[in-house]
Amino acid sequence: MTAFPVPTMPAPPVSVVGLGQLGGSLAAALAAAGREISGWDVDPAARDAAAARGVQITSEVGGVVVLAVPLPVLDRALDDLTVAPDATVTDVGSIKVPVLAALGPRFGDRYVGGHPMCGTERSGHAATDPSLFTGARWALCLEPGTDLRRWLRVAEVALAVGAEVVPVTAAEHDDAVAAISAVPHLLAAALAAAAERAGPLALALAAGSFRDGTRVIGSDPAFVTALVEGNAGPAAAALDRVRAQLDRPVAELVAAGHAARTALGDPADRRPVRVPLDRPALLALGRAGGAVTRRLAAFVEGWVPGSSGHQA
Amino acid sequence: MTAFPVPTMPAPPVSVVGLGQLGGSLAAALAAAGREISGWDVDPAARDAAAARGVQITSEVGGVVVLAVPLPVLDRALDDLTVAPDATVTDVGSIKVPVLAALGPRFGDRYVGGHPMCGTERSGHAATDPSLFTGARWALCLEPGTDLRRWLRVAEVALAVGAEVVPVTAAEHDDAVAAISAVPHLLAAALAAAAERAGPLALALAAGSFRDGTRVIGSDPAFVTALVEGNAGPAAAALDRVRAQLDRPVAELVAAGHAARTALGDPADRRPVRVPLDRPALLALGRAGGAVTRRLAAFVEGWVPGSSGHQA
Repeated sequence: MTAFPVPTMPAPPVSVVGLGQLGGSLAAALAAAGREISGWDVDPAARDAAAARGVQITSEVGGVVVLAVPLPVLDRALDDLTVAPDATVTDVGSIKVPVLAALGPRFGDRYVGGHPMCGTERSGHAATDPSLFTGARWALCLEPGTDLRRWLRVAEVALAVGAEVVPVTAAEHDDAVAAISAVPHLLAAALAAAAERAGPLALALAAGSFRDGTRVIGSDPAFVTALVEGNAGPAAAALDRVRAQLDRPVAELVAAGHAARTALGDPADRRPVRVPLDRPALLALGRAGGAVTRRLAAFVEGWVPGSSGHQA
Repeated sequence: MTAFPVPTMPAPPVSVVGLGQLGGSLAAALAAAGREISGWDVDPAARDAAAARGVQITSEVGGVVVLAVPLPVLDRALDDLTVAPDATVTDVGSIKVPVLAALGPRFGDRYVGGHPMCGTERSGHAATDPSLFTGARWALCLEPGTDLRRWLRVAEVALAVGAEVVPVTAAEHDDAVAAISAVPHLLAAALAAAAERAGPLALALAAGSFRDGTRVIGSDPAFVTALVEGNAGPAAAALDRVRAQLDRPVAELVAAGHAARTALGDPADRRPVRVPLDRPALLALGRAGGAVTRRLAAFVEGWVPGSSGHQA
């Protein structure tokens, strides 16, 4: 696929607020890419670590402002900042409807919700890794009121650090992560708690399938509880869908689960697409399981799953 | 802990029937340890591979006979063999009550059910690995009618290849593996199938927790279905215990699951014990989550979890 020439526009400066694992990694990756990058954190140690990676430290933020602090402290973090009036504001939270409700009224069409699907069980600035976003999906919210030019500015930041951008609405995002994040954590918790009740013999015999199936509930319980309770409606609906599956006959359930798992993610199974820069087309790309990999002048390039004739 | 002298008895010869991943690995490990070892398989390629590792190929079996063939073909496999009248017969199947029902009437107190808790997603003789059993738990059934001397002969085979022996009854074993093997497979299937219904967007965003939680349902569906349907009663009861956990309030469920997962398996958290050679004491060791690591003259040595004062 050949691209027609793209008019070069200066990349806007980026300000990252919260220099923990996600924010610190993003700032470090952008600094390494030669971007104009500033950052802020309430923790002096996090500021020092970022400064050592080439991040300018200031609480006066503008350009694309990435809020990489937990939702409960978002308001307090904003009180500490001077935000440029024309700044585009994004965030990296795991749930998007509540953040939209919190920041939408304040920033209007300047707010673009985001969620990079990466991060590890480690946290804090010591877990900074500039390659954290390479190949990761980065969900980016396109609401009816979103300014598409601002959405593209944030998308370019995600693309610049090696991520692929998945256009979504906040509600679609929260439904999807309920199924693939909240519910796996709940199932892991139930599996571990039930096996403990089965007694020490069961735990002593526990091998690979049990360890794999319970690994994620080793995470911080407060984080997991917030992940579920902050997304309560979609999580309850997704859990009901799992309960319904568990009522199927065993052979049928096993066959359906095996087919779904096997179909999952052959990263080579992609078909390149070019999508015009409008909201319905971009959202259709996300709903098809595809992602944006590059911006052109009036299009974005990306991919959808499969080699068949599906057209995003 | 010092052991008093153990009278040296000649280790009985071992015959392994079925030279796939489990049987082939066991035969190879015993050959490498210098034990007198023979083997048989209906597949000439499996026989040739075992012979190359020092295994004598014959269908006349005796000493400790390890049946390492799937339950559905067990009867046919036995028809091909000449079994010495005084042979001790064991097996390596994933479920123990049905095998006891199949082999108990035929071999009486000469049958000792076993289940090494290892093996990978690979199978067949090409997956042979003499170190497969190192550090693995090997459940070994002590029924009311089991001949304890024969149980010890099989236990010594397991210990000789680096496994730790967990004394269990067949019914206790099947209840335990329902909780830590059948149910994790069912939950993985339900999670994958439900996420697929949530659509391509959800699958495209799926990251670590979903991949971990669904990994085991990548296994052969026929194997998984047999694992559940062959253990239907205990599996249904274990699944009901998981359903009951899922009805708890989120924060309570997450805390309980996190505590159970975190308590799981610090391998260093062991207290050495010496257990007399009688059925109640050995079964108490297994129920406490412990295992046998060595046979002494009138005792076995082993461990139970924890540094506290629990006495197996």
